[in-house]
Amino acid sequence: MISVEKALQIVLNSTQRFGVEEIPFLKSVGRVLKEEVLADRDFPPFNRVAMDGIAIDFFQFKKGQRAFTIAGIQAAGSVQITLQNPLGCMEVMTGAVLPNNTNTVIRYEDVMLENGIATITIEAIVEGQNVHARSKDGRCGDLLIHKNTVLSAAEIGVLATVGKSFVKVAKQPKVMIVSTGDELVGVAEIPLEHQIRRSNVFTLVSLLERLHISSKTAHITDDKSILKSKIKSYLKAYDVLLFSGAVSKGKYDFLPEVFEELGVEKLFHKVAQRPGKPFFYGQTNTCSVFGFPGNPISTFVNCLVYFYPWYQKSVGFEVEEETAVLGEDVHFRPNLTYFLQVKLENKKGRIVASPISGNGSGDLASLVNTDAFIQFPDDKSELKKGEIFKIIRYRKF
Amino acid sequence: MISVEKALQIVLNSTQRFGVEEIPFLKSVGRVLKEEVLADRDFPPFNRVAMDGIAIDFFQFKKGQRAFTIAGIQAAGSVQITLQNPLGCMEVMTGAVLPNNTNTVIRYEDVMLENGIATITIEAIVEGQNVHARSKDGRCGDLLIHKNTVLSAAEIGVLATVGKSFVKVAKQPKVMIVSTGDELVGVAEIPLEHQIRRSNVFTLVSLLERLHISSKTAHITDDKSILKSKIKSYLKAYDVLLFSGAVSKGKYDFLPEVFEELGVEKLFHKVAQRPGKPFFYGQTNTCSVFGFPGNPISTFVNCLVYFYPWYQKSVGFEVEEETAVLGEDVHFRPNLTYFLQVKLENKKGRIVASPISGNGSGDLASLVNTDAFIQFPDDKSELKKGEIFKIIRYRKF
Repeated sequence: MISVEKALQIVLNSTQRFGVEEIPFLKSVGRVLKEEVLADRDFPPFNRVAMDGIAIDFFQFKKGQRAFTIAGIQAAGSVQITLQNPLGCMEVMTGAVLPNNTNTVIRYEDVMLENGIATITIEAIVEGQNVHARSKDGRCGDLLIHKNTVLSAAEIGVLATVGKSFVKVAKQPKVMIVSTGDELVGVAEIPLEHQIRRSNVFTLVSLLERLHISSKTAHITDDKSILKSKIKSYLKAYDVLLFSGAVSKGKYDFLPEVFEELGVEKLFHKVAQRPGKPFFYGQTNTCSVFGFPGNPISTFVNCLVYFYPWYQKSVGFEVEEETAVLGEDVHFRPNLTYFLQVKLENKKGRIVASPISGNGSGDLASLVNTDAFIQFPDDKSELKKGEIFKIIRYRKF
Repeated sequence: MISVEKALQIVLNSTQRFGVEEIPFLKSVGRVLKEEVLADRDFPPFNRVAMDGIAIDFFQFKKGQRAFTIAGIQAAGSVQITLQNPLGCMEVMTGAVLPNNTNTVIRYEDVMLENGIATITIEAIVEGQNVHARSKDGRCGDLLIHKNTVLSAAEIGVLATVGKSFVKVAKQPKVMIVSTGDELVGVAEIPLEHQIRRSNVFTLVSLLERLHISSKTAHITDDKSILKSKIKSYLKAYDVLLFSGAVSKGKYDFLPEVFEELGVEKLFHKVAQRPGKPFFYGQTNTCSVFGFPGNPISTFVNCLVYFYPWYQKSVGFEVEEETAVLGEDVHFRPNLTYFLQVKLENKKGRIVASPISGNGSGDLASLVNTDAFIQFPDDKSELKKGEIFKIIRYRKF
């Protein structure tokens, strides 16, 4: 049995690469950028009018002129026009090119318009005001979005602006999620007294969707030869296999021996943690195998603690560790790393994590009422209110 | 011009209801539950074996017996069997029904198996151990997931367990996102000198996808009669219209007058904030109209600050306010609420928000390098490091 730290290190030292694909930019949210996105022109690409109003040659204002004859209108989306007479002005619209021979924009609020003449009504005018100068935001060729950025709505506008209608991103892994256990029936079925419905595979599907990974699911009966032949084909067809159940000591927990017979190299089996101790991790040359214990919380926490960072490192993005302040004392005796469900609250900028206890609801709904796991180290049994620990969120994100 | 607080209050007092629909449970992540989810049976539904090992009648152990003849195997998914001879034991697998006439499970690690006899090798056995008692996690009829819960992977397993293959959720609004502005060309086009590419509508599409809302987009030329006829039909066909641009004082900013002519009741136009001051908000009996200013950051912040809470209240979930510690002094003179892009860092459980400054990158890429807006109140101009302010995240969530 190895420690959580050692297990995570082994997982992170065995990442894969799934390659790169080019997809429509509007489908790229949540994906990891695999190219540098550069400015394709200066931004703004021209001296851009930043307020609706009039454009003048500031030199005339400085000389004392206040009334300017309107010579025309420069609309957004029109070719740049020229102010021929420096004593005149142009009406200009936000987003338009600043007319030739002008350099300063006075907004409509500070101008009186009458009989084709614009009279400036304030004195506080600064040369160049309300003009968003060409290339102020960036020059053609500037790096706008770094490679390995996780794309979000904040990047979508930049991609559109520079014309990246297609964008290179990390391919997602091909994932098969397998449940085992003859006690399991389908969600739409009525279980017999000794049966329960399949649920962990669907939890895993949802946890992977959060990472924008789509996955397949299968159920295999507790029959060693069937398990072996199906898993053999899955190992060839997928980058990742996630299992829920059949990795412990039961008579029908065939998975570890099936993996061995199929040439899956065992990297570890059993981690000094609660929940989720009998976790199996191994791989072939092309496929990584995560054997999660069948308890719902075990499957959930192992997916977050091991699969998530494995995937994130595989596609190339770093995740910052998040910490929180423990909201009440916790006592935990065994020499195991302890992942405990907590509710999170933001109290004046501090994240406070409070264990949910005393409702007797057990495992079934305990994830429903909580937001994260807090991770307690294996060498402490008295965890004190106010101490800082790592958290792993599954909600409010 | 009204304050941000007043504007938000008006927005939140004019929410809509979009109705309820029943959808496959696996598609329900991110949606708002519109029914109570109850336990359909006791959980566990039977006295459930919690460890692989042997099941005995504890009374025999107490009397001093240590070697038990194995009478059979109770596998997970099998009908409950009965231990006929109280001096014997049953091998039992995790997830199985506890055999009749047994009450205690000893894990394989603490048993020696030889010639069909299991000998218990430790003395610390407690009656009822390693049995997950029927109904310990919940009784048939217990409330497991509250109405108005935002469903996540944590709920998916519970929905599956209780057989909710379909689930009632709030319907999403039908949304049309409209750009205006003759300077705009398509993302895949090469703009002329005085043109730029459409980007805000795509940012809005992505911001709405974060809420699991799919939307349509359209571009309308700066022609009042065309605007009027198209918007007239959109007002009938959609629950929400989002506009980017054409709400300010420009000669071609037709939207406010078109809205008035089409019977859109103006609830406010202009909010005392930076950025995004010329924000228009109005509605008809069936449609809410958000007219965001055309600047990319203005559109982005207004969508997060007004549309998000409007939608969230409409479908029935409460959002907790999040706060952070300001990482450095900020000076801001105008009497406006100020939304400033910040990078977030988790420092020992505290969320520290640091404004990005001094890189001169302007608007174009400023959202790319930041995680949230911090909201400074309109009555303070000196914001001090260490003070707590509201934040609105758009990343790391």
